[in-house]
Amino acid sequence: MNEREKFTRPKKYTPKGTYQKRYYKKRTPAENIVTPEKHTQPQPKEIRKATVKIIPLGGLNEIGKNMTVFECSNDMFILDCGLSFPDSDMPGVDIVIPDFAYVERNRDRIRGIVITHGHEDHIGALPYLLKKVNVPVYATRLTIGLIESKLKEQGLSGKVRLHVVEPRKTVKMGCMAVEFIKVNHSIPDSVGMAVHTPAGVIIHTGDFKIDATPIDGKVIDLARFGELGNKGVLALMSESTNAERAGFTRSEKTVGASFDRLFQQAEGKRVIIATFSSNIHRVQQIINCAVKYERKVAVFGRSMINVIATAKELGYLNVPDKIMIDIEDMDSYNSEEIVLITTGSQGEPMSALTRMAMNDHKQVVITPMDFIIISATPIPGNEKYVTKVVNELMKSGAEVVYEAMYEVHVSGHACQEELKLMLALTKPKFFIPVHGEYKHLKKHSELALEVGIPEENIFIASIGNVIETDGNKMSIVSQVPAGRTLVDGLGVGDVGSIVLHDRKHLAQDGIIIVVIGLERGSNRISAGPDIISRGFVYVRESEELMTDARKCIKDILYGCSYAELREWGFLKDKMRDELAEFIYKKTQRHPMILPIIMET
Amino acid sequence: MNEREKFTRPKKYTPKGTYQKRYYKKRTPAENIVTPEKHTQPQPKEIRKATVKIIPLGGLNEIGKNMTVFECSNDMFILDCGLSFPDSDMPGVDIVIPDFAYVERNRDRIRGIVITHGHEDHIGALPYLLKKVNVPVYATRLTIGLIESKLKEQGLSGKVRLHVVEPRKTVKMGCMAVEFIKVNHSIPDSVGMAVHTPAGVIIHTGDFKIDATPIDGKVIDLARFGELGNKGVLALMSESTNAERAGFTRSEKTVGASFDRLFQQAEGKRVIIATFSSNIHRVQQIINCAVKYERKVAVFGRSMINVIATAKELGYLNVPDKIMIDIEDMDSYNSEEIVLITTGSQGEPMSALTRMAMNDHKQVVITPMDFIIISATPIPGNEKYVTKVVNELMKSGAEVVYEAMYEVHVSGHACQEELKLMLALTKPKFFIPVHGEYKHLKKHSELALEVGIPEENIFIASIGNVIETDGNKMSIVSQVPAGRTLVDGLGVGDVGSIVLHDRKHLAQDGIIIVVIGLERGSNRISAGPDIISRGFVYVRESEELMTDARKCIKDILYGCSYAELREWGFLKDKMRDELAEFIYKKTQRHPMILPIIMET
Repeated sequence: MNEREKFTRPKKYTPKGTYQKRYYKKRTPAENIVTPEKHTQPQPKEIRKATVKIIPLGGLNEIGKNMTVFECSNDMFILDCGLSFPDSDMPGVDIVIPDFAYVERNRDRIRGIVITHGHEDHIGALPYLLKKVNVPVYATRLTIGLIESKLKEQGLSGKVRLHVVEPRKTVKMGCMAVEFIKVNHSIPDSVGMAVHTPAGVIIHTGDFKIDATPIDGKVIDLARFGELGNKGVLALMSESTNAERAGFTRSEKTVGASFDRLFQQAEGKRVIIATFSSNIHRVQQIINCAVKYERKVAVFGRSMINVIATAKELGYLNVPDKIMIDIEDMDSYNSEEIVLITTGSQGEPMSALTRMAMNDHKQVVITPMDFIIISATPIPGNEKYVTKVVNELMKSGAEVVYEAMYEVHVSGHACQEELKLMLALTKPKFFIPVHGEYKHLKKHSELALEVGIPEENIFIASIGNVIETDGNKMSIVSQVPAGRTLVDGLGVGDVGSIVLHDRKHLAQDGIIIVVIGLERGSNRISAGPDIISRGFVYVRESEELMTDARKCIKDILYGCSYAELREWGFLKDKMRDELAEFIYKKTQRHPMILPIIMET
Repeated sequence: MNEREKFTRPKKYTPKGTYQKRYYKKRTPAENIVTPEKHTQPQPKEIRKATVKIIPLGGLNEIGKNMTVFECSNDMFILDCGLSFPDSDMPGVDIVIPDFAYVERNRDRIRGIVITHGHEDHIGALPYLLKKVNVPVYATRLTIGLIESKLKEQGLSGKVRLHVVEPRKTVKMGCMAVEFIKVNHSIPDSVGMAVHTPAGVIIHTGDFKIDATPIDGKVIDLARFGELGNKGVLALMSESTNAERAGFTRSEKTVGASFDRLFQQAEGKRVIIATFSSNIHRVQQIINCAVKYERKVAVFGRSMINVIATAKELGYLNVPDKIMIDIEDMDSYNSEEIVLITTGSQGEPMSALTRMAMNDHKQVVITPMDFIIISATPIPGNEKYVTKVVNELMKSGAEVVYEAMYEVHVSGHACQEELKLMLALTKPKFFIPVHGEYKHLKKHSELALEVGIPEENIFIASIGNVIETDGNKMSIVSQVPAGRTLVDGLGVGDVGSIVLHDRKHLAQDGIIIVVIGLERGSNRISAGPDIISRGFVYVRESEELMTDARKCIKDILYGCSYAELREWGFLKDKMRDELAEFIYKKTQRHPMILPIIMET
């Protein structure tokens, strides 16, 4: 089977509604496939055609919001479109998505979006992108299922062309073609991509690990990675999440063995297990244990309920009859007859487990008869939340298993030996580490050096970099707009650095508002000055300070000439500066000071 | 030597100024020492005298602000007086100290304060306490040195009686006596305490580890702990920081061996090492390496400079002549001739290392000729800051060593085997795990069970609990005020839950201020409504929203009767509620809404 035969049209998944194929021009095979011979000839036009650009728009020097644009001739496609979660320096922000400016500017050239797997950092920004650039989306069955329910939430149901693609199948993207290759990860149906371009094959691993005993029996398609490696891979883009960790990531199956031991230990108690809702294999192993130890399963947490429903419907979860029970029916069973599967493994404040811990859950009260397993590792930044939940659960007398020693969690990402194996199998000419902060990319580069990639062929890039290759050389040639767009409530991008700066300032020391009324014309002070504060001091116990502050403002006002009172800008600055100085001297705090002048 | 002989007066350290000994009544030995025989007799008064109360005011169910009150008859003393650092839910707060209400209320009964070691979580709240209750402070030499420089910063220099106590020496506290016992920890001169009371001996370990090869050669005084254990220990209060970690904590000396290897690896490069300023043994090992590899040492960061000066002056740091150089003289040396020791191992935003990483340091520019060692583990909550610093340092081309695999840091706290050894040596009747969150205390209790302490003799207490013992029984009998006092700038305790709630609200979605002027008497709207926002949206791009919000307020005002306009409380509530609803519908955000009505 040659490459061209595999350019099959993928079957449509939700063909509701008809769409104009305005972004999807039909091309003849001759236009699509440029044979390597052609590039070597000194025809400027042909050389230009063979040049491929790789433009990461997210996922480099950061964790999350993974997104890459591939570009060749007049064709572009997007690989993944994820979100990231806000840092502590982005108060009030709900999620962070990539800056789509470059994609929007090139909307007519985009042939589609391919998605490696259904995690939020790979699909979470899709609804926002699709609202602006409605192009077809290609992914494996479960991933499409998860995308569909996400689009439904955002009112995009039926408005987007979603296509299911099986591993080893290929999707045509203008003069490029994307082949899906099975990988292992902490969500089923994950794939890496081989991008067949006129300049050569570029492999993007997506998120992956090498699991010889995955729960669904579907081992990563190392054969195909190796086959491509033998034929010649131009470039490898490989994920770097665990590049700092030595050795191999353990198999998901080890968690099942731990669960088995712990279920025995928990005899006579209710078992509660918190894990990531998307880790369907983990959920499968819990269900398997429930079957073995004759317990019923109840599910808590909106995302857990949704994902389990989708996975069951699509056949990714094997749930025997009558094992699942409704939350309402729990009371009909004894504690030792039940397993609860719940969200909240990261200590998220509103999650089911957190509410149980805080004694704030309607249906579940934690007692010494509970055996709780937190089947996850805290994501950096969440440690304190998880600790708080563990403490509270323990205070209720429950046994809580959460530490590494119990092997109740394994990573979904490749460790150093797996990363090296991927490099060794694909034997790329060029290497671009992706998905990670700088330290991860650097460490991954060092692994590539060990495997024998020359240093000058390794590119630690930044988002917005235009990485160009003609099959022989690779270089970063230019820069396109890239960055972060903050989503807060319904607002997408209306919270920027000024608003964030103000929020952080307000959070630090609160605000003092000074209001005065000036009479129109005469500029006589007709009202105030009034001083109101929020988040600064407990006002009832600081009356003297507030009285003095008011006096400070009065002194300024009475010291001003009528001419100065007419200069509101000057007057505001003067009040702000002098009150700030007064307050700092008294309290060593820097509240935001907001003078308001009203014309009466 | 019997117990009584050891009640020597400690020598005074800084006897500047004379103080009235109003809190320090002289007692005859007969009053002080109650022999065990006396308790067993059925004399109510005597039994009352023998009762000892232990009142933790900090350090239980939390990390930091360690403080315990011991109370017997009319005598009280305080063991440690530390601070903790604010969580992310305390924006703008600088430090957190214990609630001193109980201590203040009993000021006349307090005989003194004993301090186990010079870390902030054990001495940081001292200046705040001493400003309210000026009693003598007893500690080892280095600890006193560190306390002294802290008091100087707070303007308390010379106003407090500081006494140096050597290990194995005892300080009399009314009818109790406190014996200092050498322990190992990540700061020199750390001690545990044996509190000799009429009811029996209570051991408080302070922070400790068991290090057979400490840098100063002074091994923890296990002999004394064992001796007391053989004589009979009533209760053990032992620290729980590492109660979750199996095995033994490695010796500080292993870090020196790692430094040696890394100095060889760093040949030809400048070496920069970041660590905790208080870890003087770590600093000593860096200096030793500098001597061996013929490098000069320059020191960065205010706290590092201060602590090194104190430690040198008191003889805790052995610094050969001419090895230290001034920062200004660095230019006279080549990169490979220098070691920089710096603060910032936790990625603290204003620290020297962070400023170097951000290319914002006057004297140090990071280049590929730098070999940087971060000799610390991120404290929970600081992971992201440290990662940011590592990324930035690496981007400058420097080599950065920070991972566990390089063994450039060891903990200062006992792991499970050491904790069990302490329990086994002291053989206490009662056990009170201290210093840790609930999960640590729980784990430590389980270790005590393993060692053979009966479950009913283990007390997981909370701050404010009054733990009473007569030498035979122990129980939690009552509760005294305990909690946290927040320090923000010069304000101690003026930031409470309302202010924090407002700050968090302001940080989430900002503030919208609505100002209107009403004419005195007539209640005619004489000015506004004006709408001003901060931290809500980028106003220039949201003009329509702000115009609509103004219209919303106008509609409310024009819909009000004159009678309603007179009811300012009603009017404000109405504006707040309706504008909040309008804003939420438009943006799904909840900014703070602050209506201000001015009388003109």
